[in-house]
Amino acid sequence: MGRKILIIGGVAAGPKVAARARRLDPDAQITILEKGEYISYAGCGMPYYLSGKIHDFDHLYSTAYGVKRDPEFFKAERGIDVLTGMEALAIDRANKKVTARNVATGEESVFEYDKLVLATGSNPITPPIENLNLKGVYRLNRLSDAPIIKQAMEAGEFNDVVVIGSGFIGMEAIDAVFSPMRTVTVVEFKDTMLPGILDPDLGKILYKNLYEQGLEGRFGEKVLRLEGQDGKVTKVITDKGEIPADAVVVAVGVRPNVKLAQEAGLTIGETGGILVNEYMQTSDPDIYALGDCVENTNIITGKKTLAPMATYANRQGRIVGDNVTGGKSAFKGVVGTGVLHCMGMNVARTGLGENQARDLGYDIETAMISTFDMTHYYPASNKVLLKMIVDKKTQRILGLQGIGKGEVAKRVDVVATLIYYGGTLDDLLNLDLGYAPPFSTPIDPLVHCGNTVKNKLEGIVNTYTAAEVQAKLERGDDFVLLDVRTPQQFATRNIDDPRVQQLTLGELRARLADVPKDKEIVTVCAMGSRAYEASRILKGAGFKDVKLMEAGMEGWPYDME
Amino acid sequence: MGRKILIIGGVAAGPKVAARARRLDPDAQITILEKGEYISYAGCGMPYYLSGKIHDFDHLYSTAYGVKRDPEFFKAERGIDVLTGMEALAIDRANKKVTARNVATGEESVFEYDKLVLATGSNPITPPIENLNLKGVYRLNRLSDAPIIKQAMEAGEFNDVVVIGSGFIGMEAIDAVFSPMRTVTVVEFKDTMLPGILDPDLGKILYKNLYEQGLEGRFGEKVLRLEGQDGKVTKVITDKGEIPADAVVVAVGVRPNVKLAQEAGLTIGETGGILVNEYMQTSDPDIYALGDCVENTNIITGKKTLAPMATYANRQGRIVGDNVTGGKSAFKGVVGTGVLHCMGMNVARTGLGENQARDLGYDIETAMISTFDMTHYYPASNKVLLKMIVDKKTQRILGLQGIGKGEVAKRVDVVATLIYYGGTLDDLLNLDLGYAPPFSTPIDPLVHCGNTVKNKLEGIVNTYTAAEVQAKLERGDDFVLLDVRTPQQFATRNIDDPRVQQLTLGELRARLADVPKDKEIVTVCAMGSRAYEASRILKGAGFKDVKLMEAGMEGWPYDME
Ligand SMILES: Cc1cc2nc3c(=O)[nH]c(=O)nc-3n(C[C@H](O)[C@H](O)[C@H](O)COP(=O)(O)OP(=O)(O)OC[C@H]3O[C@@H](n4cnc5c(N)ncnc54)[C@H](O)[C@@H]3O)c2cc1C
Ligand SMILES: Cc1cc2nc3c(=O)[nH]c(=O)nc-3n(C[C@H](O)[C@H](O)[C@H](O)COP(=O)(O)OP(=O)(O)OC[C@H]3O[C@@H](n4cnc5c(N)ncnc54)[C@H](O)[C@@H]3O)c2cc1C
Ligand SMILES: CC(C)(COP(=O)(O)OP(=O)(O)OC[C@H]1O[C@@H](n2cnc3c(N)ncnc32)[C@H](O)[C@@H]1OP(=O)(O)O)[C@@H](O)C(=O)NCCC(=O)NCCS
Ligand SMILES: CC(C)(COP(=O)(O)OP(=O)(O)OC[C@H]1O[C@@H](n2cnc3c(N)ncnc32)[C@H](O)[C@@H]1OP(=O)(O)O)[C@@H](O)C(=O)NCCC(=O)NCCS
Ligand SMILES: [Ca+2]
Ligand SMILES: [Ca+2]
Repeated sequence: MGRKILIIGGVAAGPKVAARARRLDPDAQITILEKGEYISYAGCGMPYYLSGKIHDFDHLYSTAYGVKRDPEFFKAERGIDVLTGMEALAIDRANKKVTARNVATGEESVFEYDKLVLATGSNPITPPIENLNLKGVYRLNRLSDAPIIKQAMEAGEFNDVVVIGSGFIGMEAIDAVFSPMRTVTVVEFKDTMLPGILDPDLGKILYKNLYEQGLEGRFGEKVLRLEGQDGKVTKVITDKGEIPADAVVVAVGVRPNVKLAQEAGLTIGETGGILVNEYMQTSDPDIYALGDCVENTNIITGKKTLAPMATYANRQGRIVGDNVTGGKSAFKGVVGTGVLHCMGMNVARTGLGENQARDLGYDIETAMISTFDMTHYYPASNKVLLKMIVDKKTQRILGLQGIGKGEVAKRVDVVATLIYYGGTLDDLLNLDLGYAPPFSTPIDPLVHCGNTVKNKLEGIVNTYTAAEVQAKLERGDDFVLLDVRTPQQFATRNIDDPRVQQLTLGELRARLADVPKDKEIVTVCAMGSRAYEASRILKGAGFKDVKLMEAGMEGWPYDME
Repeated sequence: MGRKILIIGGVAAGPKVAARARRLDPDAQITILEKGEYISYAGCGMPYYLSGKIHDFDHLYSTAYGVKRDPEFFKAERGIDVLTGMEALAIDRANKKVTARNVATGEESVFEYDKLVLATGSNPITPPIENLNLKGVYRLNRLSDAPIIKQAMEAGEFNDVVVIGSGFIGMEAIDAVFSPMRTVTVVEFKDTMLPGILDPDLGKILYKNLYEQGLEGRFGEKVLRLEGQDGKVTKVITDKGEIPADAVVVAVGVRPNVKLAQEAGLTIGETGGILVNEYMQTSDPDIYALGDCVENTNIITGKKTLAPMATYANRQGRIVGDNVTGGKSAFKGVVGTGVLHCMGMNVARTGLGENQARDLGYDIETAMISTFDMTHYYPASNKVLLKMIVDKKTQRILGLQGIGKGEVAKRVDVVATLIYYGGTLDDLLNLDLGYAPPFSTPIDPLVHCGNTVKNKLEGIVNTYTAAEVQAKLERGDDFVLLDVRTPQQFATRNIDDPRVQQLTLGELRARLADVPKDKEIVTVCAMGSRAYEASRILKGAGFKDVKLMEAGMEGWPYDME
């Protein structure tokens, strides 16, 4: 008889531990207890099932070769016992036993363990909103939520949709339900889209894009209660008004499910997740915990953080699989990477955001550029915005954020790798990143972004953000906003203000006399590079007060119609 | 009067130096001498112009905002003097002067310099093939080559095309001209496609894919001469036969153009490129060199290498731009990254290949896996093959190669970054790479590949390559090739041999008695993971001699029809 490995939780973390442990120890008795119906499923895939990209519900819990990952699969293929509808109630650490209850029958049973693994995941947060129990109010957390929403969508009950929260899951819910045939409104308590994930400047541009596709956003607005008729939701009431709604998706975040751990006297960390060491051991060395239920360490800051993501659940799962079978593998922490796709826009980020970095006391420099994700002449090229955050003192890169129709995930993965090693701006220019026209530009956009930070640090360029320019315009500052784009580009979209002066980059050197020498000049172009060139021309010609607007008109969100 | 910066060569390296230098030093007199007609062009874009993806020839030398980068552009926008049709003949280092000749008029003139920059690039190698001067024989190196080929294609003179050489440019030439309406044959002197860039195993699979689309390949075959009629090519004669041809593209590599440097007494390195230090200075500190004409240092091996790529030309250009204007920026070397797209297949590689690593004396372990580039259930997912090369002693990652319809460039960029830092397999599992279904798998395919190497190093799995299995089959070895795929998968494609035994992974645990215990068992599946699982089941059940075939049927190239 082999060692007894008992695992509580059967979605991502739990099954991964079991799978790895089984491969390493053929004799172990491996058992998973899962209180729900489904196991080993791709919760992350639900939005694409709802939007119709994935046709078949079963695909969310099937292998690539078409076999459903149900308890029979785990038994036959993996030699793992999975008990669904079985809720673990209590851990008896002294006797290494777990009591569980059959959810259907109420029958209780006891499971022994040599090693216990807590993969109890997270629970959706229930915000203090009245009447969340009305019909038409949905969650998108468990696999069992997906068919419920799907059915309602197909029954025509999703016409006026309100999504509460614009975090990762909120955005994916938007992607899942958005259609020009529906009214979709997102209500976000914070001032900006994807708060804490994207800096506000990028959040604004992202929202501008989604808005132009038809999404309604209400930011800095708090949902107070829902109203309904005949038990069905009809309205969302906020602190600023009301929104008609026949469907509401609540997505205000998740919280680690630590009940069992807490009741068993295991240490819970300051963030509310189960405390583990780098081997994913809890305060009881025979009990491991991983996935959404634990707290993680941020590699940059050394601080504890919650990181409820499937990638950590899986990678930690492999590590715990090693460790419960006698190995000693370590999880070093997270740097805060996240990617997401919503309504044709890619969003990716890693490391610290601008405000996070400042709050932590870093003296930082940032740059935002608009760029093509590959050579502009290649037909598949698309624009993206990249923003980098750098520690001034060490020139270490602290974070990268990217949004756009084009490729941003690659650049974020490279920076996540750089951050892992404490990489600097000098390292960045020396990275041997692959270039061919369908993949990149000769100098990768990411490297251009880093060089732009370097140019700022070295005083070669001075910049304003779009928000700063907007504030100057509103304040009535006396300055020239020098637009150096082609007349065609200017005609298509421009900032309508008497302080705007037009002069293409090609004309500028010959017509310097037309630019007022005594005023502050802010150069602006489509994406940023011509404004940079123009600022160097002006500085070279003795203009004293020259700045550029970062990321050009692509970075300008203040003209939403 | 500012310092005189004289630059020889006007394609990628030269203009980038000029552009950066101008921004840093508004007073410098910056002059570029280019003997050809075109400047500042995207040679890398030519294949896509020829294939019709890029419609407009001008796009190959236009900015993103539609302005042609001709000498007028450089003068007006950049304040840079570009003289085309002007060939530099000799450098007088003592007096800091360069003599040049107007190609059209023959007139000579003298240019003074404070800093001289050699960006003389490379020349295509002319192989020892008779009759290369026949009509219908083309190069794809200079921008001026592109309209010539385009015209011939449009005039219907590309019916039976032979491409000589399957390096980067040969493959891009194939991509440029391939069409089901043409017969396209590539003749490669070495035994495999993209020799030195891809290991032979991946080269074979790549070729299998292109072959199935209609490309003809002849490997280990040497072109001896061309034959023609009325001065136009009709046949390619090799050491093994002949190939009808009305168009031949010669693409056997490039050689650094070091004539000027050599005649001026500058040190030429062992590889034939101009020797430079990390500041890109030649043996004369007032003369810099960069781009295709210099030799580079490989960061992994410390050895000199040629790396004629636009990305190095551009990144070194920024560095030289710094240094000729009083800065001190360093180029640390290359790790050997390259990416390419050909006939729907992406190819990417970085670091050392398997044979390169062995030749350098490394004791290595490798793994090849077939994998989806993102979650298999996401409709945009595609298969790729990844192969990783790892130093056994240090577990440092030495190289990665990837091919497939799916995303491989991202994984290669991450590994290029890892290699820059001397990253190990343990680091890989700890990288915080972004995961969401449209971008990756919860454990990135790259990390799965690294884990597979680790499993091999730890003896958890033993493997054969497809080539080894094929050799065993041909040798008549007595073993069982245990195919654990579904019957449907088996029916679609299988290895037709009596030693093949069928048993799905789901059946295996229950039917262990059906597997001969005294024979060597080689498990095989579609992509590799089920064969791995099966091998662990068998080992766990006491089977002594168990191996798997790496990358499954996706890695099996021996059944081309
Ligand atoms: C819509 C959506 C999209 C997402 N997209 C992404 C993405 O793109 N990328 C990414 O990295 N992550 C994503 N995630 C997050 C990801 O799904 C989670 O991080 C992951 O599922 C966590 O796995 P887990 O096994 O730790 O926990 P969970 O998935 O929460 O599973 C825990 C399980 O434990 C069970 N359980 C709890 N207590 C007990 C008990 N006492 N007895 C028995 N069973 C118990 C629960 O029933 C539950 O099934 C997404 C999540 C959602 C909802
Ligand atoms: C089809 C093709 C595809 C490619 N694809 C890629 C790719 O995907 N990725 C990548 O990284 N690289 C790619 N490359 C390589 C890339 O184009 C070169 O690395 C790059 O052009 C090198 O730039 P360079 O300025 O150093 O040299 P060159 O481009 O060779 O330019 C040198 C210039 O100097 C001039 N010159 C030389 N001697 C003199 C003299 N004495 N007087 C005056 N002028 C002189 C020459 O006329 C020439 O115009 C590709 C190349 C080709 C041909
Ligand atoms: C699928 C699941 C049961 C894990 O099982 P698993 O067999 O470890 O599956 P993985 O794909 O993670 O790994 C397969 C193994 O084969 C290897 N492998 C992965 N891809 C491979 C390939 N293409 N070829 C060969 N080997 C491969 C891996 O190294 C791994 O072995 P190791 O951990 O022993 O090194 C568990 O992760 C799960 O239930 N997942 C679904 C839920 C989920 O992740 N949800 C969140 C995402 S939305
Ligand atoms: C275009 C060329 C003249 C270089 O000019 P350049 O102005 O330095 O152009 P780049 O795009 O490389 O860089 C633009 C500058 O703006 C910055 N920049 C780049 N993209 C930016 C963006 N989107 N927003 C703001 N700034 C940007 C960069 O940091 C760079 O400045 P720096 O070097 O002073 O830091 C030269 O590279 C060339 O001739 N290229 C064409 C030929 C070629 O490369 N062929 C090979 C490829 S096929
Ligand atoms: Ca621009
Ligand atoms: Ca498989």
